[in-house]
Amino acid sequence: MIRAGIVGGTGYTGVELLRLLAGHPDTELSVITSRSEAGRPVADMFPNLRGHVDLEFTQPEGGQLAGCDLVFFATPNGTAMTLAPGLLEQGVRVIDLAADFRLCSAAEWEQWYGMPHACPDLLEEAVYGLPEVSRDAIRDARLVANPGCYPTAVQLGFLPLIERGLVDASRLIADAKSGVSGAGRGASIGTLLSEASESLKAYGVPGHRHQPEIRQGLEAAAGNPVGLTFVPHLTPMIRGIHATLYARLKDSDQDLQAIYELRYRDEPFVDVMPAGSHPETRSVRGANHCRIALHRPQGGDEVVVLSVIDNLVKGAAGQAVQNMNIMFGIAEDAGLEGIALIP
Amino acid sequence: MIRAGIVGGTGYTGVELLRLLAGHPDTELSVITSRSEAGRPVADMFPNLRGHVDLEFTQPEGGQLAGCDLVFFATPNGTAMTLAPGLLEQGVRVIDLAADFRLCSAAEWEQWYGMPHACPDLLEEAVYGLPEVSRDAIRDARLVANPGCYPTAVQLGFLPLIERGLVDASRLIADAKSGVSGAGRGASIGTLLSEASESLKAYGVPGHRHQPEIRQGLEAAAGNPVGLTFVPHLTPMIRGIHATLYARLKDSDQDLQAIYELRYRDEPFVDVMPAGSHPETRSVRGANHCRIALHRPQGGDEVVVLSVIDNLVKGAAGQAVQNMNIMFGIAEDAGLEGIALIP
Amino acid sequence: MIRAGIVGGTGYTGVELLRLLAGHPDTELSVITSRSEAGRPVADMFPNLRGHVDLEFTQPEGGQLAGCDLVFFATPNGTAMTLAPGLLEQGVRVIDLAADFRLCSAAEWEQWYGMPHACPDLLEEAVYGLPEVSRDAIRDARLVANPGCYPTAVQLGFLPLIERGLVDASRLIADAKSGVSGAGRGASIGTLLSEASESLKAYGVPGHRHQPEIRQGLEAAAGNPVGLTFVPHLTPMIRGIHATLYARLKDSDQDLQAIYELRYRDEPFVDVMPAGSHPETRSVRGANHCRIALHRPQGGDEVVVLSVIDNLVKGAAGQAVQNMNIMFGIAEDAGLEGIALIP
Amino acid sequence: MIRAGIVGGTGYTGVELLRLLAGHPDTELSVITSRSEAGRPVADMFPNLRGHVDLEFTQPEGGQLAGCDLVFFATPNGTAMTLAPGLLEQGVRVIDLAADFRLCSAAEWEQWYGMPHACPDLLEEAVYGLPEVSRDAIRDARLVANPGCYPTAVQLGFLPLIERGLVDASRLIADAKSGVSGAGRGASIGTLLSEASESLKAYGVPGHRHQPEIRQGLEAAAGNPVGLTFVPHLTPMIRGIHATLYARLKDSDQDLQAIYELRYRDEPFVDVMPAGSHPETRSVRGANHCRIALHRPQGGDEVVVLSVIDNLVKGAAGQAVQNMNIMFGIAEDAGLEGIALIP
Repeated sequence: MIRAGIVGGTGYTGVELLRLLAGHPDTELSVITSRSEAGRPVADMFPNLRGHVDLEFTQPEGGQLAGCDLVFFATPNGTAMTLAPGLLEQGVRVIDLAADFRLCSAAEWEQWYGMPHACPDLLEEAVYGLPEVSRDAIRDARLVANPGCYPTAVQLGFLPLIERGLVDASRLIADAKSGVSGAGRGASIGTLLSEASESLKAYGVPGHRHQPEIRQGLEAAAGNPVGLTFVPHLTPMIRGIHATLYARLKDSDQDLQAIYELRYRDEPFVDVMPAGSHPETRSVRGANHCRIALHRPQGGDEVVVLSVIDNLVKGAAGQAVQNMNIMFGIAEDAGLEGIALIP
Repeated sequence: MIRAGIVGGTGYTGVELLRLLAGHPDTELSVITSRSEAGRPVADMFPNLRGHVDLEFTQPEGGQLAGCDLVFFATPNGTAMTLAPGLLEQGVRVIDLAADFRLCSAAEWEQWYGMPHACPDLLEEAVYGLPEVSRDAIRDARLVANPGCYPTAVQLGFLPLIERGLVDASRLIADAKSGVSGAGRGASIGTLLSEASESLKAYGVPGHRHQPEIRQGLEAAAGNPVGLTFVPHLTPMIRGIHATLYARLKDSDQDLQAIYELRYRDEPFVDVMPAGSHPETRSVRGANHCRIALHRPQGGDEVVVLSVIDNLVKGAAGQAVQNMNIMFGIAEDAGLEGIALIP
Repeated sequence: MIRAGIVGGTGYTGVELLRLLAGHPDTELSVITSRSEAGRPVADMFPNLRGHVDLEFTQPEGGQLAGCDLVFFATPNGTAMTLAPGLLEQGVRVIDLAADFRLCSAAEWEQWYGMPHACPDLLEEAVYGLPEVSRDAIRDARLVANPGCYPTAVQLGFLPLIERGLVDASRLIADAKSGVSGAGRGASIGTLLSEASESLKAYGVPGHRHQPEIRQGLEAAAGNPVGLTFVPHLTPMIRGIHATLYARLKDSDQDLQAIYELRYRDEPFVDVMPAGSHPETRSVRGANHCRIALHRPQGGDEVVVLSVIDNLVKGAAGQAVQNMNIMFGIAEDAGLEGIALIP
Repeated sequence: MIRAGIVGGTGYTGVELLRLLAGHPDTELSVITSRSEAGRPVADMFPNLRGHVDLEFTQPEGGQLAGCDLVFFATPNGTAMTLAPGLLEQGVRVIDLAADFRLCSAAEWEQWYGMPHACPDLLEEAVYGLPEVSRDAIRDARLVANPGCYPTAVQLGFLPLIERGLVDASRLIADAKSGVSGAGRGASIGTLLSEASESLKAYGVPGHRHQPEIRQGLEAAAGNPVGLTFVPHLTPMIRGIHATLYARLKDSDQDLQAIYELRYRDEPFVDVMPAGSHPETRSVRGANHCRIALHRPQGGDEVVVLSVIDNLVKGAAGQAVQNMNIMFGIAEDAGLEGIALIP
């Protein structure tokens, strides 16, 4: 049994981790910390866990984290980088669901996240935890940077094109639509039901933190700089990301469907749908899958890739569990067999 | 392994049965029939099942149903009563998720459902499948009438009061609110998102088919006639039933909380919440639980019971699986361990 | 032209007042105050007002309020009672959309609202602004207490029964369902889309501030004490209240439909729908109407009244404008002719 | 008073026309036809119109249409082209809210709409009713083709760039998101609340009928062929279109904000928002405005235009009323002064 701990389990990625770990056959959830809720039973805050999780939130200083095999950070940006080094020294492996270790460059990180990085030396060691790209490195990693939600959907959608150099990488467009849970479980006016329901808007168009993360991944795949325009949208649903990706083919004779199917043939959580499909976000609601469909409107040179995930599962907690499974050498889909809820 | 079949799997109770049975450790899904979709892969209609269910819909006449240990009917009212007798004769056990066998009186059934009953003689044998009331009878039943969604939430909420005669049973009020999936997966204007979203209405106030079903159950528990006003409402969400129940206490000195906790102490799927709770329907979304909370506003004689279920799980497919588990002597929660999705 | 001012226009009742007053033919909106937003153009916060409202928020101390004929308070409870006395002295008439002047008894008010009342002597003078009950008193009032949203829907639904003594008033039940905007435009976790969407729950069952307000109104109509159980529910929509009211008839021979039609025959904003109707909240979305339908399930002695309003219009800002129109002797529907938005 | 008639008023564009015309100061609604609902009061189908519209649906053959000054067709594609010629001969002016007269080329129309065109000779005379482009021609038109919803949002967003040749028109991308009401008021499974809520998907990616309509308009503005990729999405809300438009600037020194403000300076229904804005669809819900904002992410050469409308107002019925106002020489905003509903 993997002894797992969670730091900061009061947000949506935290409760989703709890849901997945509570049903995981090889994991024992040992500790979950929250400064603000210490002493409160987890199932009191999240009644869906009644009868499934008996833990109480505890203070992070209790020393229990050091007794874990693995600690997940489901904290705001900037927390993991202060606590991870100590845990790593004590032999605890770490998966950070926040952004602290996602960018290779400390300078770029500091520019986008607006604070100094507490342990820039760990950035090189940290493995970017997109299993479809870095499975081998994840297996041996001490420290995994769990990818962001948008970056997961966008990279999985673009990768087969970029890796093979099939498109003009100087002008990639990612138009992404997210459910509101991506904004987290913090009290704010903008994500009230009365504000965000029955409405839709773009946000962060001048610049969003996930843009450099996506670009970094695509450039690694391309071996060259890429030009990426990324526009996220807030949409009136709880869960789900739909990324609509646009690129221009260099060579219009490619069998893109075959290329994608080959690329993801052995991936347990990437589903290349039949040609002509239009994946719905609900087809992955609560599940760890990414479903992808390919189109060339009117048979032209523009390729349109549709990529959907559940932002809290493949876009956060599910991918973290997938990474844990890889790190500990157990079945990659352990605890992740749940089927999406339709309707 | 229980060889299970489904007749009519294209509706919401059907796809939910598929989701639950696909993850059930002791069941082998052998056949699923649909006249209109015969030959089509199930996962083509319900993409959440891609990679989990490989079956195709078949014609019901194929004889495969006779090879099952158990057949679920997820059909419109009036279908099971024509096919169940033949299957029973062949030794196949049957759970009907529709209403054909829910009322004891054929005359009353015909009045509410507007058609002659095809096998009134089976009504006596059929067991009303509310495990919290009839677990022993279900165990040995050949034919189980799976309760309706509203009747499940309302009966579980009222039963401890009625069984002990604690309230004036001549004036019970059940004000129930349902998600739209209760109306089924049929094309209709009234349940379009554009009609049913951002709005709320009562329906069927003059008379709803679930009223006699609830009344029958409560009268059996009371051993006397009861007076019940039942008003269902359509609310802008997909899943969930919230029943708000009103009754007047005969004796105000009762410890209702203790009575409910005792009544449901051994029930795996009924959760009596702490005093003062307000259960949310999302706390059971996708799960087979019924969560109940008790109130006496301003400490008076009126008792208000709040009872929530997922109409497609404890209110339909989940309860059917629970009944199957009981009928076949396996763990009652097999295949039903899933945790509700929050958020 | 009526010179109108608004104190505290940053919440939902405030922006709805702005929408209605901006289109009002006889009103000049002179000033809108907000401490937190002083200096900010109103249309910057509420872009639907771009091109319609040119005002900026100002500090309430600016003296501009004293130059108004009428000041609306769209403030949290407890604000109007501190500022209204001064304005009244200066000859400014006041409509308070909060609860400060709704209850006749200062003691009861203090018990439910948890603070001392700043001007209990004004409670006697204040007119409870339900035009269907107190039109004449409103006409001459200096100070109008605009009713709460639930109390408007519930009282209009019950009044014809209570005024004529047709039902057993010792056990009235009001099961009410509200959209989330009733909770206001404050940052809070419970009303986030991710929390409140796709879910439904009761709240405040032990006791809600609108219970004494409703009871006071019904007792005035009955001339006797009434017993009222009031249970509010939070439902996943922005606007709308649906009150489902239950009472037992004393005499089952009454023609309730005729009684209601007669009672509201001359009311411009109460629509008694044809017998057998099920009003939808969307049928009044954005409009000042209350639509009511009557039922006697299975022809019995229980009467079920369905009453719907838009909580922000007839339940708040629209009723306030209606009261203003009455106070200033202009057409009662001036500025309130808007038709509800369907779909 | 303009005597106006509506053919086919049972869909969403029909009821929205009714809402707008009922409040229009210069219009008398004379007749509304529906074969399926003839004899039924309009307000019986759409209860928001109770007290506002007294008409009944009638058969279209009654001859009343010929007595109108103007007839709106709110019918499925293919109806107006069979009836409009006769009305025009009788001197009745016509606005078609469907697609029959939107494309200049009968051949292209037949290819996309899958039927022969009944009066191709009228295509040349018909004026495409986008007032911001063709106000003068609309003024004198006998026959106006009211633009589609997507084409309105996309063209208004792209026009200032295209008219001035500021971008590479060979690769324009329009990623558009629509509420479900755009799919109409027909019974269908795909737009049930249980299917379309809490989910998001692209549709029609291989080819959508609005693509040639948009392309035609942009090519007319450019004076040259344009390359356009258009991807529509179904989103879980009732009303609203959000078009996110991508183009590459030829010359990065342009002051786009000033260019847009100048272009739409005199337009009553196009609102160029301040630089840096992110328009929300709810800011135009129920209103005839198009709100536009401009971005250049990270200051690069890619321009991103955000354009929002209410698909049923500026995207259908409101624009039709605007066209009527222009055709009859009355104030262009008559009957269109309503303010969008927030929240």
